[in-house]
Amino acid sequence: MHIPLFDGYIFDLDGTIYLGDELLPGAATTITQLRASGRRVVFLSNNPTHTTTHYALRLSRLGIPTDAADVINSSQVLVDWLQDALPGCRVYVVGEQPLIDELTAAGFMIATDPAATDVVVASFDRTFTYAKLQFAFDAIRAGARFIATNADRYCPVPGGGEPDAAAMIAAISACTGVAVEVVVGKPSPIMARAVARHIDLPPARCIMVGDRLETDIAMGREAGMATALVLTGATTRAMLADAPINAEYVLERIEQLL
Amino acid sequence: MHIPLFDGYIFDLDGTIYLGDELLPGAATTITQLRASGRRVVFLSNNPTHTTTHYALRLSRLGIPTDAADVINSSQVLVDWLQDALPGCRVYVVGEQPLIDELTAAGFMIATDPAATDVVVASFDRTFTYAKLQFAFDAIRAGARFIATNADRYCPVPGGGEPDAAAMIAAISACTGVAVEVVVGKPSPIMARAVARHIDLPPARCIMVGDRLETDIAMGREAGMATALVLTGATTRAMLADAPINAEYVLERIEQLL
Repeated sequence: MHIPLFDGYIFDLDGTIYLGDELLPGAATTITQLRASGRRVVFLSNNPTHTTTHYALRLSRLGIPTDAADVINSSQVLVDWLQDALPGCRVYVVGEQPLIDELTAAGFMIATDPAATDVVVASFDRTFTYAKLQFAFDAIRAGARFIATNADRYCPVPGGGEPDAAAMIAAISACTGVAVEVVVGKPSPIMARAVARHIDLPPARCIMVGDRLETDIAMGREAGMATALVLTGATTRAMLADAPINAEYVLERIEQLL
Repeated sequence: MHIPLFDGYIFDLDGTIYLGDELLPGAATTITQLRASGRRVVFLSNNPTHTTTHYALRLSRLGIPTDAADVINSSQVLVDWLQDALPGCRVYVVGEQPLIDELTAAGFMIATDPAATDVVVASFDRTFTYAKLQFAFDAIRAGARFIATNADRYCPVPGGGEPDAAAMIAAISACTGVAVEVVVGKPSPIMARAVARHIDLPPARCIMVGDRLETDIAMGREAGMATALVLTGATTRAMLADAPINAEYVLERIEQLL
């Protein structure tokens, strides 16, 4: 399989560049060589449990020196979206502390009363409890809007996975009967537009590389980029046969991009 | 509206007989008069958070003297179903302590290792946490079956509602990608068969009385019983217009049955 070279490379993180606390084979070589040949490299994660600064430090520590400006994640895109669409709104977060901190830092008030809540944000939340579900339920029934950072089923970790934001969204939707209104993360065009603004290249000269058909590859195709699926994360070759979407390239290892 | 008298009356509890810790208007009079005229009265609840003994004591305390044998709930039907279908299985419960106790009392082993779990039971769980979701995720991905006591969206309480088992089922389904295999509670025919065994009357001589179209009324119709919807719980008159199922009788107050 021959893969042409592109001017811009957009890489997913979990399951594509690393798994848990270890780089996936070939990741550092691939990024180093692409950068050395003048290609633009951006990291794009649906994971809202840390800030972009955290991801940049983590990549740097693992051997891929990266600036926070070259990382885009769903919590950052959510904050931008809220600032644009609902400035000054009172937000209740079913999510982890870093997302709450990002919203607070951006000037949003964290709701403490379901009846005085404008927006419920559902997110990947390993601190999810029934009390949070009850607050979200009460707020949405009192008229709050319902949006989400991302809709991934689970986050790949060594030996398995962690239930991701799809679980929190589904729990809230099931008890309220209200569907989530906006999901900013991949495959949303909201995320694709954030990438486009950042990378400043025509989509046809970019390739989206990730481990999930329904988020990474769907967004890349929709945005008019080339797409490469890596088999190092959530997707196995067996799952490709009856998948509704497919990537242009399927890679066993990420350095096949070179 | 004239409602004929029946030989058997099956009453839902939450939202039909009581709301929180208070009887709904007319409930005691209705039950007392039906019993006095020799009618068979059974209480049927999807709520798995207490034993049938608890519900009988609660009804008695509220002024409707009731024996545990005249209460059927989804946790009891679940235990019966498991004893029949999967005797000796190792069960992980996303549910509250009384359900765990009922399963233990019936001889089931509570799983402590996701890889050594035969069945995940999802239920109304006000003690739901991410750790439980993770266990259920790991067990189902390791091959455990996925069943549930009930699939109610929320349980009506004074001034609002509590997210019910639909939320737990949806969270587990969303992250695993696995649909729940069996839900024993209303409107399941499993629950209807439990009622039929208990009441020992032809369905055509019975009426199912409840506050929810999608559980109480759906089960009653499916089982061939007459049905009466009370507007004292989860359903308002405005919701009836575009409902896919309807009850034969719609009651503002339960004593309209008399």
